[in-house]
Amino acid sequence: MSKPYTRLDKNDVAVLLVDHQAGLLSLVRDIDPDKFKNNVLALADLAAYFKLPTILTTSFEDGPNGPLVPELKAQFPDAPYIARPGQINAWDNEDFVKAIKATGKKQLLIAGVVTEVCVAFPALSALAEGYEVFVVTDASGTFNEITRDAAWDRMSQAGAQLMSWFGVACELHRDWRNDIEGLGTLFSNHIPDYRNLITSYTTLTKAK
Amino acid sequence: MSKPYTRLDKNDVAVLLVDHQAGLLSLVRDIDPDKFKNNVLALADLAAYFKLPTILTTSFEDGPNGPLVPELKAQFPDAPYIARPGQINAWDNEDFVKAIKATGKKQLLIAGVVTEVCVAFPALSALAEGYEVFVVTDASGTFNEITRDAAWDRMSQAGAQLMSWFGVACELHRDWRNDIEGLGTLFSNHIPDYRNLITSYTTLTKAK
Amino acid sequence: MSKPYTRLDKNDVAVLLVDHQAGLLSLVRDIDPDKFKNNVLALADLAAYFKLPTILTTSFEDGPNGPLVPELKAQFPDAPYIARPGQINAWDNEDFVKAIKATGKKQLLIAGVVTEVCVAFPALSALAEGYEVFVVTDASGTFNEITRDAAWDRMSQAGAQLMSWFGVACELHRDWRNDIEGLGTLFSNHIPDYRNLITSYTTLTKAK
Amino acid sequence: MSKPYTRLDKNDVAVLLVDHQAGLLSLVRDIDPDKFKNNVLALADLAAYFKLPTILTTSFEDGPNGPLVPELKAQFPDAPYIARPGQINAWDNEDFVKAIKATGKKQLLIAGVVTEVCVAFPALSALAEGYEVFVVTDASGTFNEITRDAAWDRMSQAGAQLMSWFGVACELHRDWRNDIEGLGTLFSNHIPDYRNLITSYTTLTKAK
Amino acid sequence: MSKPYTRLDKNDVAVLLVDHQAGLLSLVRDIDPDKFKNNVLALADLAAYFKLPTILTTSFEDGPNGPLVPELKAQFPDAPYIARPGQINAWDNEDFVKAIKATGKKQLLIAGVVTEVCVAFPALSALAEGYEVFVVTDASGTFNEITRDAAWDRMSQAGAQLMSWFGVACELHRDWRNDIEGLGTLFSNHIPDYRNLITSYTTLTKAK
Amino acid sequence: MSKPYTRLDKNDVAVLLVDHQAGLLSLVRDIDPDKFKNNVLALADLAAYFKLPTILTTSFEDGPNGPLVPELKAQFPDAPYIARPGQINAWDNEDFVKAIKATGKKQLLIAGVVTEVCVAFPALSALAEGYEVFVVTDASGTFNEITRDAAWDRMSQAGAQLMSWFGVACELHRDWRNDIEGLGTLFSNHIPDYRNLITSYTTLTKAK
Amino acid sequence: MSKPYTRLDKNDVAVLLVDHQAGLLSLVRDIDPDKFKNNVLALADLAAYFKLPTILTTSFEDGPNGPLVPELKAQFPDAPYIARPGQINAWDNEDFVKAIKATGKKQLLIAGVVTEVCVAFPALSALAEGYEVFVVTDASGTFNEITRDAAWDRMSQAGAQLMSWFGVACELHRDWRNDIEGLGTLFSNHIPDYRNLITSYTTLTKAK
Amino acid sequence: MSKPYTRLDKNDVAVLLVDHQAGLLSLVRDIDPDKFKNNVLALADLAAYFKLPTILTTSFEDGPNGPLVPELKAQFPDAPYIARPGQINAWDNEDFVKAIKATGKKQLLIAGVVTEVCVAFPALSALAEGYEVFVVTDASGTFNEITRDAAWDRMSQAGAQLMSWFGVACELHRDWRNDIEGLGTLFSNHIPDYRNLITSYTTLTKAK
Repeated sequence: MSKPYTRLDKNDVAVLLVDHQAGLLSLVRDIDPDKFKNNVLALADLAAYFKLPTILTTSFEDGPNGPLVPELKAQFPDAPYIARPGQINAWDNEDFVKAIKATGKKQLLIAGVVTEVCVAFPALSALAEGYEVFVVTDASGTFNEITRDAAWDRMSQAGAQLMSWFGVACELHRDWRNDIEGLGTLFSNHIPDYRNLITSYTTLTKAK
Repeated sequence: MSKPYTRLDKNDVAVLLVDHQAGLLSLVRDIDPDKFKNNVLALADLAAYFKLPTILTTSFEDGPNGPLVPELKAQFPDAPYIARPGQINAWDNEDFVKAIKATGKKQLLIAGVVTEVCVAFPALSALAEGYEVFVVTDASGTFNEITRDAAWDRMSQAGAQLMSWFGVACELHRDWRNDIEGLGTLFSNHIPDYRNLITSYTTLTKAK
Repeated sequence: MSKPYTRLDKNDVAVLLVDHQAGLLSLVRDIDPDKFKNNVLALADLAAYFKLPTILTTSFEDGPNGPLVPELKAQFPDAPYIARPGQINAWDNEDFVKAIKATGKKQLLIAGVVTEVCVAFPALSALAEGYEVFVVTDASGTFNEITRDAAWDRMSQAGAQLMSWFGVACELHRDWRNDIEGLGTLFSNHIPDYRNLITSYTTLTKAK
Repeated sequence: MSKPYTRLDKNDVAVLLVDHQAGLLSLVRDIDPDKFKNNVLALADLAAYFKLPTILTTSFEDGPNGPLVPELKAQFPDAPYIARPGQINAWDNEDFVKAIKATGKKQLLIAGVVTEVCVAFPALSALAEGYEVFVVTDASGTFNEITRDAAWDRMSQAGAQLMSWFGVACELHRDWRNDIEGLGTLFSNHIPDYRNLITSYTTLTKAK
Repeated sequence: MSKPYTRLDKNDVAVLLVDHQAGLLSLVRDIDPDKFKNNVLALADLAAYFKLPTILTTSFEDGPNGPLVPELKAQFPDAPYIARPGQINAWDNEDFVKAIKATGKKQLLIAGVVTEVCVAFPALSALAEGYEVFVVTDASGTFNEITRDAAWDRMSQAGAQLMSWFGVACELHRDWRNDIEGLGTLFSNHIPDYRNLITSYTTLTKAK
Repeated sequence: MSKPYTRLDKNDVAVLLVDHQAGLLSLVRDIDPDKFKNNVLALADLAAYFKLPTILTTSFEDGPNGPLVPELKAQFPDAPYIARPGQINAWDNEDFVKAIKATGKKQLLIAGVVTEVCVAFPALSALAEGYEVFVVTDASGTFNEITRDAAWDRMSQAGAQLMSWFGVACELHRDWRNDIEGLGTLFSNHIPDYRNLITSYTTLTKAK
Repeated sequence: MSKPYTRLDKNDVAVLLVDHQAGLLSLVRDIDPDKFKNNVLALADLAAYFKLPTILTTSFEDGPNGPLVPELKAQFPDAPYIARPGQINAWDNEDFVKAIKATGKKQLLIAGVVTEVCVAFPALSALAEGYEVFVVTDASGTFNEITRDAAWDRMSQAGAQLMSWFGVACELHRDWRNDIEGLGTLFSNHIPDYRNLITSYTTLTKAK
Repeated sequence: MSKPYTRLDKNDVAVLLVDHQAGLLSLVRDIDPDKFKNNVLALADLAAYFKLPTILTTSFEDGPNGPLVPELKAQFPDAPYIARPGQINAWDNEDFVKAIKATGKKQLLIAGVVTEVCVAFPALSALAEGYEVFVVTDASGTFNEITRDAAWDRMSQAGAQLMSWFGVACELHRDWRNDIEGLGTLFSNHIPDYRNLITSYTTLTKAK
């Protein structure tokens, strides 16, 4: 009766980045801002690295919510970009759903701000329509631990799988031999401890 | 086998505020009092804003548990108000259940003090009778994290959905265009970070 | 597909206190010792107050694990007391299971030290034999939060309901009118904040 | 509908130690390093004590990930040792799976670094192939609590049982009388509080 | 050799509110936003209640730092308001120092955002010029606990006294009999637990 | 230039218990209520055990602050009891200071609620008058860690020594041989871990 | 008797970066690695921005401690670089002290890994020789909070001033008008919340 | 007016290990037991490595406090060992003070259980007699953070220097060249992260 193991397949994944906007980011207090910024950019780099179709969406970006974080815009210049005119659940926006369907993918990686709304609502809608949903928990943020834990429980009970950007990268890559340098660079750029390991290793082996 | 996505529908929701009494509030130590007070009043404002039928109930309000928080009484002067003569589980009080049935709603938003008793008991009873139950976790408080986590697990396993007042407001509103100012005011009054965003935005745009 | 609401019924409950021994208590570090001692004694008082058949058991009490906490022995002088000769899972001890069966009860309240062993093992065994199991989480202790969270997950997934002693007392009592003074005394003795409410209330009403 | 109680049976258990490598250990920040080192060595001692077939595997041990922790190599000199050439999910390595099948065991104890990848991936794969999977949570480490909690949820929802090394030892041993001294030594070596109990007890009883 | 007891005297106190601006507030992460907003407004109410001369100052309020929080502007419509053209240490602004000197007070209550800059710099400068400085710690905020603790140490070692708004109110008021209702209202508006005490008390005594 | 070692001398100590009132206790959130209640009663038992002259005082006990905790009244039936008519700093009350002077002691142990007011104010006043002041930190409580840390710093900088009730008991007793059983009982009643040590020890030695 | 206000003067400051080596960084566990990396690079950027003479030193960089973090080497290609042959206290290395003296500066900003050794030892030595010492606390890391707090206390008691990189930047800059864009860029690059403020502000003002 | 830099000199140091007894260790809850055990043994190894005269003392070791931890006894078989007949402050025991004086050292390293009594009392007494006192904070433990922080403040204000075992080792050793292997072994045995660095380094360099 448990959920079966649905494994991420890089040929069947689309990425949804929902409402990572400059104003809304000031609401995120369940993750430290340095770490959160890093996690979001890591997810973006990951999506680019694996060439996953990525869809950007924002809520009211001309108002207090503020514009999409510029790094994301820069990272995905050609991605579908849906500035929603009002729908809170991105899934209620037809263009957003069309863009997803246009990718032809069945597995959705979702991250956004704030977790219990901008992530949870489309995640629940996608599950209801039969998609396999993977929440990138550490690239999603919210007000505090209570709102996060409640949101996680709601999504998990509805069938979503909770992951982290590192777990996603590893599950997509499958085998280091597919590209050691590429994955190593991704990790080096976003995991300081891993970068240090590489620095020490490289220095020592060069010194031979 | 997962729970299906039951989405809040503002036409099918009733709100149950259970035992937010001046004495009992001193028992709440899993949320800081400034934040908790704000969350409870936010839920009340939300219920009023969406014109959701709301039911108030108290336990032994003439004894040490103390009177209902005056702000709630003031907010809902015409709401059914059931001062329970002794039943701990509000659902064991016929008037309370009658009041709920009189609303004709199928979805129940429940919040109260303390979580594992005043919220969990009626939540479990309502689920057993076929209602869709949404616990407003951050407007519900209890002794400590251990009692909270146990209560959440019990309710979630029984089929309740765990939400926060902000998630509830967003799921009910659906589209900002239904009333931008109304929802914005609700958020501005209860989310200091959001209020600051609005202040900065308004000042800048006025300055043009 | 959710767990149905199995409600505690004071006529159908037995209490199992497993290995609250003076030595083992020094292992408990997921709850502060002042609070833990209070919770265990509160559960004992509760069992006595509701006249619930209670079964005591210990593991190797002549060795380093140490003797049963004297207050428990004193509280239940006539209770079945099974000093297990070696079985770690109390359910593997025939006398223990016989004692439970002799009560004729279907609902088991279990608490003990340490949570993932002395509580979880008999809880899982009892569930497997069809009992309704309620874990009194805050009268059970273990090494740290990691071991606790893992143990809770294992028991919850197997069908146990996670509760706290206060929730148990309230669910058993059902209605304050059954005995206001008795329940009030239980709470006053074990919840300092509640005691203060009663002190203030009593002083003020006497002063009239 | 709950998971049935699958009990560890020392005759049907194999242990998988995945990627406890000197470099990767610097990534672990959800458990303090003194405690984590102790937990990993406790699990190793436990596996040796119960003579459980144990399989070691590493990922890229000639690179920055670093060599297997020497104590593990020393503890299991004759164990199958699979230095994976690139597969991130150990289960994708045929030799690894063959080694598991060669043990003829149905129950797998899995621990490793980091939890959401090196533990979760083979755990999910093993579950999908019908194994009973027990995650040794406290001998597994990862970046932070968020990645850990997400990984635990994913594995638990898929059917894995979450345990700790102490719980594993107790469930395998079943009865102290099988070997009091052996189990006592294991605990004394890895639980300082237990060691102190034994020290005090032994001193006092010797003094008689 | 210890600091002597310099006691706040309401006839000799001026209040400096430094850079509580809508943008800068998003930087504050050592205090929860609900609590911090409350503390700042409590200090403002306190200053108004005791009729303390109050000076407002901002840094670059036309830029990203944002405008002064509107509630403060509204509370002190006639207070000196120094929008500094660039000086980071408010004490480097002549108008600011003149405004302080114009009050003729020797004791300065300082609060602001962020603690280690907007509070610490003028606090250190004021101490150097012989003022008695009292930092209102809980109406001052900064990035995290590390920056706060370092700032507190620097100010305390230089002779500042660290207080909270509640302590300040009590030290200024000296005797409840000076105005029971006024002080009670201040506390009721900004300390939820105190408001509850008053609610219960008032209800009970009215009921006589 | 450091503070010299001023050692507690049981012949030269008076104890001041300030405002441990049923209402005010609900404000204490920097220590868990079970632990705080225990600490206050431990200090009371300690004062009685060492026969230290003890002075009780309350603030507005007929109002919302509530009556003195009954256990303290019962413990010191003949102690000077100053119900202050309004002074917030107890030292501003002449009767309180007279009662202290009447003891003829130079060393003052002070505890109370809340720390930054009811403890800090008389502590600072007493230091200013040449008393040696010892703050019993863990029998004093306040709103949160920020207000506590600020209050501790203010008192320490002014020359107060920060202690805990256990440290006080040990410094007063000096040598176990003065009364092993008496001190042991005090510890057994208020330190659960110590009680367990005694239980195990006594059981084992009796068993000889 | 308090420390006088010694204010940072950009014409009299040298920066000492001590042992930020790839291996040693894995020891730092009192600050999250994402945040710590950011803080160290912020301090480096700050030193470059204000053109402060900067001195790099390492301990045993050919051994397990690992090489200096490459970003620091790249940032200061012409800085004195003292690879100490063995001295643990950098001040015991004559070249290091000579390099400091050669700058002719009296104020030293010190940061390093680990705080209680690589920072505290030269800080204490420099104080003993009459330098004004400012510890950049958040660009210094160590094993845990206990070792950090002890190190801070030792340095503060010896006369060091505890600061953060942000406070240092502000105290050096003094007036935004000296270079708005430069300081703004420094903050935007290292304070995500500040970057968001700038993004929202710029977008809005450009939109005019 | 700050404390001058008193530097540890291995020729002038004695080590006092106070009351690290099997029973008392169960009282320590401000440091995790795995870490605390490691710290105490690290300090013992350090004392042995630097051949520092070491003095052991216990309080009532035949009673519930339990025997000295056997590892310490084994480490210092010829050290003065003072089983105090009752004095709580070890300095009140003449033999203890004589043993210290017999070493002829002026610098005292003190560690023990519990911090505010067994460490603080002799530390304060030694300071009063003109010794230079260094508290090894992380090899000293107590009930909780409140009692620890108060004890640290009292000792620091009286002139003690707060250190950690690692800082002590580094300050005593001064220069790695005095004995690279010896110090490296000490660190490898007691700092898991450092051990991992050495493992990776050694493996790589051997591989050349």
